[in-house]
Amino acid sequence: MQMYDLICKKKTNKELSKEEIYWLVNGFTAGDISDAQMTAFLMAVYFNSMSARETFDLTMAMEHSGDVLDLSCIDKVTVDKHSTGGVGDKTTLVIVPIVASCGVKAPKMSGRGLGHTGGTIDKLESIPGFNTSLSFEEFTDVVKSVGCAVVGQTGHLTPADKKIYALRDVTATVDSIPLIASSIMSKKLATGNSCILLDVKCGSGAFMKDEKSARALADAMVEIGKSAGRKCSAMITDMTKPLGRAVGNSLEVIEAAEVLKGNEKGEFYDLCIKLAANMLSLAEKGTPEECEALAKDAITSGRAFSKFKEMISSQGGNPEAVEDYKLFKQPKNILKVCADKTGVITCKDCEEIGLVSLSLGAGRSVKDAPIDHSAGIYLNKLCGESVEKGEVIATLYSSIDCNMQKISERFSSAYQISDNKLV
Amino acid sequence: MQMYDLICKKKTNKELSKEEIYWLVNGFTAGDISDAQMTAFLMAVYFNSMSARETFDLTMAMEHSGDVLDLSCIDKVTVDKHSTGGVGDKTTLVIVPIVASCGVKAPKMSGRGLGHTGGTIDKLESIPGFNTSLSFEEFTDVVKSVGCAVVGQTGHLTPADKKIYALRDVTATVDSIPLIASSIMSKKLATGNSCILLDVKCGSGAFMKDEKSARALADAMVEIGKSAGRKCSAMITDMTKPLGRAVGNSLEVIEAAEVLKGNEKGEFYDLCIKLAANMLSLAEKGTPEECEALAKDAITSGRAFSKFKEMISSQGGNPEAVEDYKLFKQPKNILKVCADKTGVITCKDCEEIGLVSLSLGAGRSVKDAPIDHSAGIYLNKLCGESVEKGEVIATLYSSIDCNMQKISERFSSAYQISDNKLV
Repeated sequence: MQMYDLICKKKTNKELSKEEIYWLVNGFTAGDISDAQMTAFLMAVYFNSMSARETFDLTMAMEHSGDVLDLSCIDKVTVDKHSTGGVGDKTTLVIVPIVASCGVKAPKMSGRGLGHTGGTIDKLESIPGFNTSLSFEEFTDVVKSVGCAVVGQTGHLTPADKKIYALRDVTATVDSIPLIASSIMSKKLATGNSCILLDVKCGSGAFMKDEKSARALADAMVEIGKSAGRKCSAMITDMTKPLGRAVGNSLEVIEAAEVLKGNEKGEFYDLCIKLAANMLSLAEKGTPEECEALAKDAITSGRAFSKFKEMISSQGGNPEAVEDYKLFKQPKNILKVCADKTGVITCKDCEEIGLVSLSLGAGRSVKDAPIDHSAGIYLNKLCGESVEKGEVIATLYSSIDCNMQKISERFSSAYQISDNKLV
Repeated sequence: MQMYDLICKKKTNKELSKEEIYWLVNGFTAGDISDAQMTAFLMAVYFNSMSARETFDLTMAMEHSGDVLDLSCIDKVTVDKHSTGGVGDKTTLVIVPIVASCGVKAPKMSGRGLGHTGGTIDKLESIPGFNTSLSFEEFTDVVKSVGCAVVGQTGHLTPADKKIYALRDVTATVDSIPLIASSIMSKKLATGNSCILLDVKCGSGAFMKDEKSARALADAMVEIGKSAGRKCSAMITDMTKPLGRAVGNSLEVIEAAEVLKGNEKGEFYDLCIKLAANMLSLAEKGTPEECEALAKDAITSGRAFSKFKEMISSQGGNPEAVEDYKLFKQPKNILKVCADKTGVITCKDCEEIGLVSLSLGAGRSVKDAPIDHSAGIYLNKLCGESVEKGEVIATLYSSIDCNMQKISERFSSAYQISDNKLV
């Protein structure tokens, strides 16, 4: 087999065989195929796409390029959730305890973020003492006893995906639906859960800007999951404005705690209930209505919040932090952004709000860069709410050396006040 | 400027500015842009093409990446010809002496071939003693005194094109009209001739398989040439069957000598007259009809053949070789291919005939590989000619260790005998 011929095949819109796809994934991972030839193939995929069969084979080849975890020691049924990411997305922190408190095992592996805020792992690490680096045995032990755990990747998972993604990242070949779908699903499959819920974010703050491409990505991923013998479904959820009120690591943990305590009941709460209900439904815990009732009850009964504290405790964290928020690292600088006129809040550019939180220190622009866990944005007023001139619309937090005033101006141009009552 | 952004621009079908094109050509040549990023750009060009303006800027950036020759020391008007290459294409050997014998200076730089037969340089080197490695001064001195010379590239011409072409060659990004046109024209412009005739071959034995793409390539090259202030025109010529009777290095030199002597008057002779007339026309030697008469007279008068011998002599070769063909290296093995039935010769696969000559040792499949100058094919019968069963249709020559019988079978399936009189 010659890589040149496989490039030509994709370039002229012909379908590659399973053997050809495995050959190129393994060859590239082993270093036998050059970055240049792999890039030629990836750019041809960007233009000519891949069939569902090719996408599935690519996913399987990447899944099996490294360790594949076996979670059957925990339970026959375990549920996972993946979000394609957005601004203020702390849903994992809420739904994993809900699901576990309803008797469904939720062993979750998450990533560190590159972008506006940290990933789920970074958020949890803002809890004093919380350890996300468990061994596979420690991880499964916590899930067996508590019902859930959230850790960073253990083992040597999907090295092919890591190497291919790093190349896509510099060659502008990230935005291809079969490549995104296979990258996400190879990791999800290797992680070993039997049920997978996909939360595909859509809107200006997400990677998928429009409904059509979000739907295409969701369909591609569900098809892969089902072909691999997993229970799999997807939801397309809104990302035209930040999720909830908090953007930033400890701020988001605090908001998640407030939702779990039943103190916050807005759109973000509704989303968490829907996602959790879908996960329970994948685990066959009842009809959609029954699953939604189960999820709501987990919050009102206080079971989900207890489970959250139990998980924190089992992973070495101080559960008192989610009761007494002063135990989190406190920000050095706080700036209140006030309304310069009376009107209605509109989110003009959701992604920009994420970038504002990045400039406050809440995220990373370079891999492995440190994160300021105290930094971020708290939205005192949500989109669609009325404000009077002079009222506080948001609060900016940071402990790094940055120009808060300038950042607040950037924030104000993305999170605007409109004269109209209806947006 | 970021290469990532330029890839995105081309990927989304936006036009790059002149500054951006120069930046990426110079950056890649200097080693500041990776092969992978350059490949991403080239594959995006394959799919989205380039505007005439972009193609011109790319050509100029590559032309000026190295030395640019000044041939004004020879004459204000000098003519060049470029063929996109085909099976048995020895036209340069015939038309350069014709043009020079008509008083127009023809300083020609040619390449070594990668493929079925050698390039013009390899063909000329089959003449005992012929030296194609002249210094720039020696080259211009020969042209000044004789009127023509054919040499390999002197100086450090178009390093950007060399580096980009090497990458295109392994990443399946060769077959893009703006990339082909800019590659050819950057070299032609750097070589410094004031008039350029482009011979775009079209058909199964050429790179351009159909008329439409041949026309597009011709138009793109002529536009570049004119934009660069040169006199430039193009001809689209047939390559559905080998050119003339000989395919192979010394065999082609001998055939060229026969045409120059006036002994061969078929389609290949007609093509040479047309090309030479076009070159004379670019040099303003008269009307098309007058130029054609001039070219024909150069042959019938013997002036062109004398010029050929004069050039051979000036470049260190033995001019007696083109009188007494036994002075060429003689092949070790000769196999006559005979008609297995009575019928009419048809060329089913011209490219395959080229590949047959390659397997006899006449060409190179790897850069810098040695060439068997004695190897090749002589077509005793031409396409469209009738043959009786048992007649010799072709003769295969080789001095390398190869299975002549098997090769002759391959030849026979490409150069067939049809039952019908009309093909």
